Amino acid sequence: MTLQEILGIDAPIIQAPMAGVQGSALAAAVSDAGGLGSLPCALLGVDDMRRELAEIRAKTGGPFNVNFFCHAPPAPSAEREAAWRAALAPYFAEFGVDPEAIPAGPGRAPFGHEAADVLEEFRPPVVSFHFGLPSADLLARVRGWGAKVLSSATTVEEALWLEAHGADAVIAQGLEAGGHRGMFLSKNPSKDLSTQVGTFALVPQVARAVKVPVIAAGGIADARGIAAALALGAAGVQVGTAFLLCPEASTSAVHREALKSEAARVTAVTNLFTGRPARSIVNRIIRELGPLSAAAPAFPLATPAVTALRARAESRGSGDFSPPVGRAERGRMPGSAGGGSHPGVGRRPVIVAFFR
Amino acid sequence: MTLQEILGIDAPIIQAPMAGVQGSALAAAVSDAGGLGSLPCALLGVDDMRRELAEIRAKTGGPFNVNFFCHAPPAPSAEREAAWRAALAPYFAEFGVDPEAIPAGPGRAPFGHEAADVLEEFRPPVVSFHFGLPSADLLARVRGWGAKVLSSATTVEEALWLEAHGADAVIAQGLEAGGHRGMFLSKNPSKDLSTQVGTFALVPQVARAVKVPVIAAGGIADARGIAAALALGAAGVQVGTAFLLCPEASTSAVHREALKSEAARVTAVTNLFTGRPARSIVNRIIRELGPLSAAAPAFPLATPAVTALRARAESRGSGDFSPPVGRAERGRMPGSAGGGSHPGVGRRPVIVAFFR
Repeated sequence: MTLQEILGIDAPIIQAPMAGVQGSALAAAVSDAGGLGSLPCALLGVDDMRRELAEIRAKTGGPFNVNFFCHAPPAPSAEREAAWRAALAPYFAEFGVDPEAIPAGPGRAPFGHEAADVLEEFRPPVVSFHFGLPSADLLARVRGWGAKVLSSATTVEEALWLEAHGADAVIAQGLEAGGHRGMFLSKNPSKDLSTQVGTFALVPQVARAVKVPVIAAGGIADARGIAAALALGAAGVQVGTAFLLCPEASTSAVHREALKSEAARVTAVTNLFTGRPARSIVNRIIRELGPLSAAAPAFPLATPAVTALRARAESRGSGDFSPPVGRAERGRMPGSAGGGSHPGVGRRPVIVAFFR
Repeated sequence: MTLQEILGIDAPIIQAPMAGVQGSALAAAVSDAGGLGSLPCALLGVDDMRRELAEIRAKTGGPFNVNFFCHAPPAPSAEREAAWRAALAPYFAEFGVDPEAIPAGPGRAPFGHEAADVLEEFRPPVVSFHFGLPSADLLARVRGWGAKVLSSATTVEEALWLEAHGADAVIAQGLEAGGHRGMFLSKNPSKDLSTQVGTFALVPQVARAVKVPVIAAGGIADARGIAAALALGAAGVQVGTAFLLCPEASTSAVHREALKSEAARVTAVTNLFTGRPARSIVNRIIRELGPLSAAAPAFPLATPAVTALRARAESRGSGDFSPPVGRAERGRMPGSAGGGSHPGVGRRPVIVAFFR
């Protein structure tokens, strides 16, 4: 079965779920254009999730993907949190952030039964995970309504693990990719970052190792990239950054300006924003504390303090702490923003025109 | 003009110069098969260089490339050397290496007039450089016999610099590449390593930025990789690791075994072997001291001490300090090892069959 048949889509193009910068509007537009739109759920409570899923169902009849993290939440450490806040103290002072007023919450919850309850109401046709797969009972619930399951691999070993544990397709996430590195067989992702490989080397290795279709991710933003990924053995692609300037994305004004700038060409993988390695445009905090800092608490516990700084800085027009990723050049999916109808199998999917 | 026309070759495949693991035999075989063979000269004195060039001329009528480094040699620092030897002291003791008996020589000399004198006798049709380009007077000497000039870029800025300074084609060296990162506009290559990008992202950026042909390097080892590189906008490819198991390479027995092992899948960029970032299979010294160590002296001054350790360890069958790169699966260029004749323009180059 081809990837298109497995996922029920016209073109083998998956819009990467990007928590914080997009929701139902972009997901529905991409699905409506013949690709697979994705709703990032890592930052959503159940009420928001229900509302967003209803929006997608109202806007498109096409298949879509919902994405969750499935990390094991770490035990909070008062000692590490204190070291982290000490490292950030000069920024708190400069930007007038009261460290006592920052909530110590976890920032991101892993997929659980409460979320599965909501999903059961909507029966999304595709569910993707980051950082491995959830427990067997949770996975069985997802399979219960016939959903196809995707997850990301950053090594051949992770791809084989995902295939063995029932993934219907594997996303080979090359080092160029935005967002968090999906590493889940590493005990210390920041340390093991040095052995992570680029899309060009990873995709053919994974394609040779597994029998399920491979979706290439990382550095793919145009038709040339898609052709190259298919040449390397991928059955499809996952694309994120290229969608960030679309009107359907909720990308902030500061972030949109950064994406169009030359500075956006210089990115690095950093653990400063959440505690896990993720790619970001090199900004002030990365230059001064990173890109990798031993002071950052375990994922996702590094998040709240930096999020508070980012919000304050962005309100002053500063991107000193903003983690946008990569450079984006395209602004609009032809025909998608205006609510064009689903093009249907057999016609050239509208989304293909986006990747000129 | 196509890359093949510029370089006078049948297939747009350049054998990457790999100092220490190959010489005239591999270069001549690749050139004879319709690609561009390369002689790495960074470790050769003038007598060896003359002998190797004579060998190539005797073995093939095809064009070939000679490769040089053009770094600015650093001032030796007794303090840094002492710190480096202190870091290595436990290994000296374990392997019975007398640190007093290690020469403090520079390890690699940059391209200079003495080497140009030798080249003038042989007039190699292509000269490639790493770490930028030599001074204008040296470059004029090379151009004097009509040689085409290549060099490596690891960023768009470096590619534009090379084009502006007269390179006939630019090698876009993605992060997957073996050997030294060609970074030459960075003041601190080990620090700036975090912003280096993979082949998949670098090649299209460079191809859009420069008018000269772009040669993709990094992670390319088979026909799929070549097709993908061309799809990304490259005019040709430079391939290294894939040739290391050829009988014409001088790859050591320990190194050949490592290349065929599963361990060879796990590589990292390290500064431990020479002082500059270069990709290596992850071995004991990288796990224990690296991959990046502030104790390593400036390039190439880190080399002699580790070279002494490597030689002693390899003589005991240990790869603890051996820096081979990547995994190799092919052993032979069809028709090349037997001294087959140059296939000639218009016929399918023999080298194409190597990349099945």
